Amino acid sequence: MSLPYNRIYNFSAGPGAIVVPVLEEARDNMLNWKGSGVGVMEMSHRGKHYEKIAAEADQYCRQLMGVPDNYKILFLQGGASLQFTMLAMNFLNGGSADYLRTGTWGEKAVSSAKLHGAVNLAHDAKASNYDVAGFELGNYSNDANYVHFTTNETIQGVDFLGDPPADGRDWICDMSSCIASRPFDVNRYAMIYAGAQKNLGPSGVALVIIRDDMVAKVPEGLPPMLDYKVMVENDWMYNTPNTWGVYLMSLVFKHWIDFGGLDAVGKYNDEKASHIYSAIDGSNGFFKVHAQPQNRSLMNISFTLPDEDLTQKFLTESKAAGFHELKGHRSVGGCRASIYNAFPREGCVELGEFMLGFAQSNG
Amino acid sequence: MSLPYNRIYNFSAGPGAIVVPVLEEARDNMLNWKGSGVGVMEMSHRGKHYEKIAAEADQYCRQLMGVPDNYKILFLQGGASLQFTMLAMNFLNGGSADYLRTGTWGEKAVSSAKLHGAVNLAHDAKASNYDVAGFELGNYSNDANYVHFTTNETIQGVDFLGDPPADGRDWICDMSSCIASRPFDVNRYAMIYAGAQKNLGPSGVALVIIRDDMVAKVPEGLPPMLDYKVMVENDWMYNTPNTWGVYLMSLVFKHWIDFGGLDAVGKYNDEKASHIYSAIDGSNGFFKVHAQPQNRSLMNISFTLPDEDLTQKFLTESKAAGFHELKGHRSVGGCRASIYNAFPREGCVELGEFMLGFAQSNG
Repeated sequence: MSLPYNRIYNFSAGPGAIVVPVLEEARDNMLNWKGSGVGVMEMSHRGKHYEKIAAEADQYCRQLMGVPDNYKILFLQGGASLQFTMLAMNFLNGGSADYLRTGTWGEKAVSSAKLHGAVNLAHDAKASNYDVAGFELGNYSNDANYVHFTTNETIQGVDFLGDPPADGRDWICDMSSCIASRPFDVNRYAMIYAGAQKNLGPSGVALVIIRDDMVAKVPEGLPPMLDYKVMVENDWMYNTPNTWGVYLMSLVFKHWIDFGGLDAVGKYNDEKASHIYSAIDGSNGFFKVHAQPQNRSLMNISFTLPDEDLTQKFLTESKAAGFHELKGHRSVGGCRASIYNAFPREGCVELGEFMLGFAQSNG
Repeated sequence: MSLPYNRIYNFSAGPGAIVVPVLEEARDNMLNWKGSGVGVMEMSHRGKHYEKIAAEADQYCRQLMGVPDNYKILFLQGGASLQFTMLAMNFLNGGSADYLRTGTWGEKAVSSAKLHGAVNLAHDAKASNYDVAGFELGNYSNDANYVHFTTNETIQGVDFLGDPPADGRDWICDMSSCIASRPFDVNRYAMIYAGAQKNLGPSGVALVIIRDDMVAKVPEGLPPMLDYKVMVENDWMYNTPNTWGVYLMSLVFKHWIDFGGLDAVGKYNDEKASHIYSAIDGSNGFFKVHAQPQNRSLMNISFTLPDEDLTQKFLTESKAAGFHELKGHRSVGGCRASIYNAFPREGCVELGEFMLGFAQSNG
């Protein structure tokens, strides 16, 4: 293994790796962006240079993700966690909503929403420690303002692996840990949101893709910074946004457009994950995936070993071999390999080989 | 004029200039921070590398600003604008508070607060288009939960130029556009907050310095992302913070510590501003400062010319001479020179000379 700039295989669950060409461009323009005489961090967000950057971020996001004209794109602060509250203030607002709870982030979305209205747990996978997800598992109510779900649960490594049905419901999706990792149909959603720090760029920005008719439903009298209508009317610049974060996101969008778009990205991620899942499946039960087979995440592979001693041995030896940040979350135990878009293919191949060898030596 | 990296004199009101050595360090560590094998944007905020960065940000902030142990430091998202709402949710909360309204940002703070309780305008400088500020001008109530003011109004260029009295009131201050520009006594405040993008680093972070007894007053049941107690209990990492922004702030804090601390910074800024104010005062009334003499901001010098034609001519010729972003805000008109800590002294000297020459030729 030899990576440029002596970089390591960084399996961090987030903030995650960013592709080298994006980092290089950001670096090379740090003190003077394209001859403007100022760096991106030093530009007025209302000046002509940043206007161009902001317009490109919108354009590239639309192009990469196929965002139709009747959706607005917002780059907000506070991450997905503030969206838990903001979407409930805007759309739950004393009414009721359906939530599919399939992991730790879904738990947080539910508990935040309960402060602003009634939550119907249309599906709750807590009893099986969140190893399953599926739209068909939901027991939906008839008067829900919206249905909320978390496509990919970062900690459990459990993914719906598809868009919700076109059934007229207003689906709101936390797509933080799998957005832009495969093709998806924006038209199926009333709103999509995602913290940027896994697949889209650095932390500190939440991408929000929201359908126009949802914006029209926003009630009066919300705090302006928590009001989607205010954010849309001000082109997400009611106040100074995270200008650097959005700049990086624009570069990331462009990178994956040039890569071939989400079809190509999806194939790439399928193949990357297959190297690790194949090792697990070929280990005669030494490694076990937390998720049910139909919900295996392609971004976060949560897996366990036979016991705690072997887990510690695996973490120690894998780190010595150059594979970093493989420790799993305490709520699931074991290990987790987060392999977002920017994580290099070679790291997946090499980890798969390492895992097979470890299973053979220790199984 | 010849600046490194062909940089220009950037009088942007915010995001503003960042000092060259900070940008260089950020650039040089972009793909691999100090041999860690990952860039700062790619690190888990809960990993050992970022823990060190976060601890240094806290430590350097305390050292530079003299923050006592009974105050917590938080690095939050959403800028000062979200603080307008957050502080009112936490501390106004259906009660009443005094506000000193001395400019555009104070207006926004007041209108955000009104959603959460009663606002007593203890002083309102709107009638004179916000040209004056002073603690002695306040008509304070006896049952205010706190007193809020904006030290330096960025648009009007009006500054209180000092700390509030030690009178037992809980003073809460928006210090966005003058924080760390001169010595100040944290002990005089119940809470200080500031958007980072003027004196402290890039946009996307609000620095909050809050006294322990205020945190104890936070009511139950607030949205977690808008609850100071939750933020304190989680060391501002309830969710993923703006990791890059805080890293840059840490470098900025350290830069000014090494410069000599806030005493030295204050003297430096006094001298920088004097070059421009001297030109104005020496122009026989050609240039006029918006602020009253006792409230002249050292960060944002808002000034007018005799008429609109001369204003346009000045903006055109000054830009051609290398002075950028001098257009004033429409609510005041005229011009504005924002000269935050990172704005170089030479630019102030040269602008002063240019202004005197322009006044002589056109007066």
